Amino acid sequence: MKAFLSIILFLFSCTIYAENNHELTWKLGYSNTKEEAPVNYMPASVPGAVQLDIARYEKYPPYIFADNFKQYSWMEDKFYTYITTFKKPYLNPAERLFFYSKGIDYQCEIIFNNEKIFEQEGMFTYINVDLTDHMKDDNVLKILVFPAPKRFSLPVDRTQASNVVKPPVSYQWDWHPRLIPLGIWDETRLEVRNRSYIEDVYVNYELSADYRKSEITILASGKETAGKIYDWELSDAHGNKVLHVKGEMKDNLTVKGISLDNPNLWWPHDQGTSYLYLSTFTLLDESGNEIQKVTQKVGFKRVRLVMNEGAWTENSSFPKSRSVPPAQFEINGRKIFAKGSNWVNPEIFPGIITKERYQGLIDLAVGANMNIFRIWGGGIINKESFFDYCDEKGMVVWQEFPLACNDYPDDAHYLSILKLEATSIIKRLRKHASLGLWCGGNELFNSWSGMTDQSLALRLLNSLCFEFNPLIPFNPTSPLMGMGHGNYVFRSADGEEVFQEMKRAHYTAYTEFGIPGMSPIEVLKQIIPENELFPPQPKTAWEDHHAFGAWMGNTWLCPEILEDYFGKPSSLEELVKQSQLLQCEGYKAIFEEARRQKPYCAMALNWCYDEPWPAAVNNSLIVYPAVCKPAYYAVKNSCRPFLASAGISKFRWHEGEEFFADLWLLNDSYEAKNVKTVTMKLVSGNQIFDLITWHPANIKDNTNMAGPTGRLKLPHLNQTQFQLVVEVEGHPEYNSEYTLKFVSNISAENDKSPVLNIN
Amino acid sequence: MKAFLSIILFLFSCTIYAENNHELTWKLGYSNTKEEAPVNYMPASVPGAVQLDIARYEKYPPYIFADNFKQYSWMEDKFYTYITTFKKPYLNPAERLFFYSKGIDYQCEIIFNNEKIFEQEGMFTYINVDLTDHMKDDNVLKILVFPAPKRFSLPVDRTQASNVVKPPVSYQWDWHPRLIPLGIWDETRLEVRNRSYIEDVYVNYELSADYRKSEITILASGKETAGKIYDWELSDAHGNKVLHVKGEMKDNLTVKGISLDNPNLWWPHDQGTSYLYLSTFTLLDESGNEIQKVTQKVGFKRVRLVMNEGAWTENSSFPKSRSVPPAQFEINGRKIFAKGSNWVNPEIFPGIITKERYQGLIDLAVGANMNIFRIWGGGIINKESFFDYCDEKGMVVWQEFPLACNDYPDDAHYLSILKLEATSIIKRLRKHASLGLWCGGNELFNSWSGMTDQSLALRLLNSLCFEFNPLIPFNPTSPLMGMGHGNYVFRSADGEEVFQEMKRAHYTAYTEFGIPGMSPIEVLKQIIPENELFPPQPKTAWEDHHAFGAWMGNTWLCPEILEDYFGKPSSLEELVKQSQLLQCEGYKAIFEEARRQKPYCAMALNWCYDEPWPAAVNNSLIVYPAVCKPAYYAVKNSCRPFLASAGISKFRWHEGEEFFADLWLLNDSYEAKNVKTVTMKLVSGNQIFDLITWHPANIKDNTNMAGPTGRLKLPHLNQTQFQLVVEVEGHPEYNSEYTLKFVSNISAENDKSPVLNIN
Repeated sequence: MKAFLSIILFLFSCTIYAENNHELTWKLGYSNTKEEAPVNYMPASVPGAVQLDIARYEKYPPYIFADNFKQYSWMEDKFYTYITTFKKPYLNPAERLFFYSKGIDYQCEIIFNNEKIFEQEGMFTYINVDLTDHMKDDNVLKILVFPAPKRFSLPVDRTQASNVVKPPVSYQWDWHPRLIPLGIWDETRLEVRNRSYIEDVYVNYELSADYRKSEITILASGKETAGKIYDWELSDAHGNKVLHVKGEMKDNLTVKGISLDNPNLWWPHDQGTSYLYLSTFTLLDESGNEIQKVTQKVGFKRVRLVMNEGAWTENSSFPKSRSVPPAQFEINGRKIFAKGSNWVNPEIFPGIITKERYQGLIDLAVGANMNIFRIWGGGIINKESFFDYCDEKGMVVWQEFPLACNDYPDDAHYLSILKLEATSIIKRLRKHASLGLWCGGNELFNSWSGMTDQSLALRLLNSLCFEFNPLIPFNPTSPLMGMGHGNYVFRSADGEEVFQEMKRAHYTAYTEFGIPGMSPIEVLKQIIPENELFPPQPKTAWEDHHAFGAWMGNTWLCPEILEDYFGKPSSLEELVKQSQLLQCEGYKAIFEEARRQKPYCAMALNWCYDEPWPAAVNNSLIVYPAVCKPAYYAVKNSCRPFLASAGISKFRWHEGEEFFADLWLLNDSYEAKNVKTVTMKLVSGNQIFDLITWHPANIKDNTNMAGPTGRLKLPHLNQTQFQLVVEVEGHPEYNSEYTLKFVSNISAENDKSPVLNIN
Repeated sequence: MKAFLSIILFLFSCTIYAENNHELTWKLGYSNTKEEAPVNYMPASVPGAVQLDIARYEKYPPYIFADNFKQYSWMEDKFYTYITTFKKPYLNPAERLFFYSKGIDYQCEIIFNNEKIFEQEGMFTYINVDLTDHMKDDNVLKILVFPAPKRFSLPVDRTQASNVVKPPVSYQWDWHPRLIPLGIWDETRLEVRNRSYIEDVYVNYELSADYRKSEITILASGKETAGKIYDWELSDAHGNKVLHVKGEMKDNLTVKGISLDNPNLWWPHDQGTSYLYLSTFTLLDESGNEIQKVTQKVGFKRVRLVMNEGAWTENSSFPKSRSVPPAQFEINGRKIFAKGSNWVNPEIFPGIITKERYQGLIDLAVGANMNIFRIWGGGIINKESFFDYCDEKGMVVWQEFPLACNDYPDDAHYLSILKLEATSIIKRLRKHASLGLWCGGNELFNSWSGMTDQSLALRLLNSLCFEFNPLIPFNPTSPLMGMGHGNYVFRSADGEEVFQEMKRAHYTAYTEFGIPGMSPIEVLKQIIPENELFPPQPKTAWEDHHAFGAWMGNTWLCPEILEDYFGKPSSLEELVKQSQLLQCEGYKAIFEEARRQKPYCAMALNWCYDEPWPAAVNNSLIVYPAVCKPAYYAVKNSCRPFLASAGISKFRWHEGEEFFADLWLLNDSYEAKNVKTVTMKLVSGNQIFDLITWHPANIKDNTNMAGPTGRLKLPHLNQTQFQLVVEVEGHPEYNSEYTLKFVSNISAENDKSPVLNIN
């Protein structure tokens, strides 16, 4: 149990305190009660999760395989003690030793040399405890972590988390097993600090109406800093100093009246440069010696949620701004179509999420032409490295608070914890250029939750966001009226396909919609026992991995839909291919139709982007940990800033039927385009049919253009599928292709499924 | 210009500072610019309005007659100076002299002995200025009042008030002439205060879930009070002391942990006793001598807005709590049907509203079985005496902020004034037991306003209410989705009468609806020149008094509707009678149908209660200043806690047609009732027809009971009207009577109007 002390003070990058040199060595034990001491201690990984430490030490099988996660369930109800020891470090008279943690999940007490010196409920508020006055030559530091909070003992579901600021997702969701992380989940260390130190620096600003000026206000807080000196500078992306201010420091410093002329603006990556400046705030002593330096990136943008085009005038009962509330992002004065996805925890145990994991996933989203993540309220608030990278890569972040699908009470204790946590979250995230929208949480106004605008939790969140970050829009929940929400399958129970559903739909924003697709065979083999692999059956590992009984109907595998289109699969490979095809074509249909509905419609975000463990089937585009499904590439294509698109009305077509599809050019870019010739072809193996040629000429910036309809009385095709190919002459990068189902007259005799006739 | 000094310190009742003994003598002058001094001064009434002083001094004709108000319009754009002088009073070393005003409308500067010592924008924030250090032997105190604020010079309408916290109503409304008050509008005086004085005392509380305990927190603020003693006691309605706490005073004092067992609750007057306790907070010096005493009434209640019965489950698109947001008042755990009216300024110049005026109007509302006022956001925030009397009389107050029908901007200056004013308003009104709902303002989410949930003004108001008064519900505006709003006429342009409109309607609350009715002849003669009296014509004083061109169509007189039912009137008396009959029957139809729709429906508030000047025709129940129209009595009857009611489907019936009406017993009281026999009769002069007899027996508390339908094939009646009479045996106090129109076959030949057939 020898421990090393981590010390370094003066290197900062977007965080206040230093990276540590030497890791503390932590051990972990557990007990049934708070009073009881653990009998044994095992090595602990920090950050991590108690479950992972136990699994490693007690040799639990991996939780991702079959139903192994169920073996972890007893771990919900224990008390955990992390322990570490260290020798008193040398401190000069101006120095203090702090315990610093960015997150302990969920409730903890800190016991130092047998004295309780701190306690906290809430995993998102950074912990800073001055240990100096309690220090001895040999020191024992314990962190007592409480069992998973449960409002009710039954039912064993998400409602158990309805009075805590802990992500409810881990209490079980339709794509998440029940596994409730506990323990130290973010950077944690000892730090030597000067007695005078900076706690926080916030570079606030307001852009002038014409974006020609950024009026900056610096808000800095510190301890024992009165009488010291601050020195602040802002440098541009080339490292050139563009602003410099120096003055007397206070414990609560506000410096106003700093203005930057002609600031380079921060844009989402598909709209311009995601320009970032570097703020460097230095604390100096009376003699001008540097005590501490805090750096952070700053991006200048103005974001608003405005009423959608046509929303004021459409024929709906008033009041209109509540029946179709603002869902149009306007960034730096430009109306932007938000294309993206719903982000969920990329790990069941967030303690093991690394910067690299975040970066890999964000890079994929940028690569898929997405410009926004909705950080869904069922999960955690991401670590700093997530937001740093979104700032850098130009991804807009719609950030929800950790409330989802529950009725969070008007309860003084709950509200006090929510206030603490939300304040921490807002003050941390408001610094990030990528932040585009605050949202109270997921599906809180729906009947299964039961909250209303009168709910004090939502009034509190609105108030706190208004107080600390008023220029970022706030929605109390998602969805709101006017927004599309769902569906989550290729074809609904009444036989309606996404194609028809989307043509019928009239929404300002599609903020959740999904089509399930299976994971690749290699992944399935890692999670399903070999003897259960084919055919997939309920009550097997398939069900534990969300292929059956996850949501309504036979989700997420939906075998009857697959079989109806393709017949019984002869192998797992075939089944996977079928499932992935529907996911690809379904997602294309939705993303492209949502874009065709612009400007009334201003958002398309699918459910969901990633996943926290490998599901057998899921609506995600990316399989755990970061494997792209074919649907990822389909969505990437549908989200290109400019593309030729076909509006298709159904998936399955019959010999003799008149096939038809509408030509469109979709332009979300802020460039006008010139397109001479667009053609539409139907291709089935070596059979090729030209449907139509279109000469659209000039397409305005950020504006779609509808073209003619291509038609073909379907002859006999030699294959059971065909491709609809849309080509832009001289610009293959704008081409699109769709795969559809063909039923010949011969095979139709054996086809008992209902035929949708929509032409 | 001799002035008397007003001094007294130690008598308080619901206000902090004393009533003054001797009035200061004020004079008033005006000028075109701020710099220019007035040439003349005239006597000024304080409180009052500059227009009233000028009118008195310069002998303007009364603004209520004909279009005289137009002569006042130049007064909008002047700068006004109030001036008073006084001799230095004797002050002992512990005393200070303050200028104190409860309201100067709208922007002012205070100049004392030629020095500007204070300025304020906003008429609702009390002004306290310490004059002591600027005092001479002979003192001159000036108040410079700015011209009426106008955001734009054109159009000349309410949008001119869209960036100020000044009631837009006075910029012209469909029942309010354009007359924009300016000047000192609430109590204003000099006060001698001890150097140590209490600024504010707020007795906050939270009731336990079972109402058996009230946990009290006292928040008191003072100046130079540290080290002094406070002594607080609460006494019951009989003057018995029930709580007593004493301790050391601080400038910001919070005393927690005081609890009152089994508090008598405050109820709306129709639900129980509106019980008020008396709080007495005394500031004592170190020797225990009383320095100041602040008393106020305290009522204990819990109010919530909850989802209406059936609102979660009804078949509407989700999210449900925004499509049908909570509109059911629950007070002390009891769901209450809110019956009441929309309160508008009872004077064009609020400076002349007295306590007695408020009391007269409140007494009438209580007498009309109303339990709620919606204080409409177009007007002022009422003076203290209004709320004191609502507390006492058990009237619930739905209080809006002064925003209406405009798009109030996200503008830093406007928001700063709104914050100042709203904070003052909330901190004042939260002390009142009668306060039941905060609301951002009137019709702000409608297309003619253009605000949304993203509007910073509304986020600010929600935040401030949450911060200072979280347990009172907050709505951002009225109407919200799910609420009925309008209509405002007996029959709409498409021929639909209120009877049909209400049967069709399905709303959680009817928060505005109106039927116009003419003022009595005596009033008309005071406002319309004799030669214009009959017949009423557009472009005469009738139009200036809202008989024509006020709102849509020929409002508010609607002569074509009257003529269609009754033919051309032969006299003003006849016309007034016709108009008042429709108002009576229309209001009965709406109030009673809204009540029949309980429990889904939970509110019925007509537009409007009173009026600020005598309109010729208006939806009001009460003619200026406090004359009850016949409709007042009709509404009073329809709002009885318990009554027998008839559901009628139209107003005009034809000979030979089958008349029908549904019997109902409406019970809003919290008593079960036993009713043996209810009968329905049709009476026309001496012709009487028994339609049906019903034996309903027991009616549950707060629950309606539907009875059978009475029917009669209409014979020839001798009169052109008939009464439908519903009688409860042994309980004439539950009887109801409706007057309907009869068309005989003979008269029908001459009747070219469309006939509605709804049976």
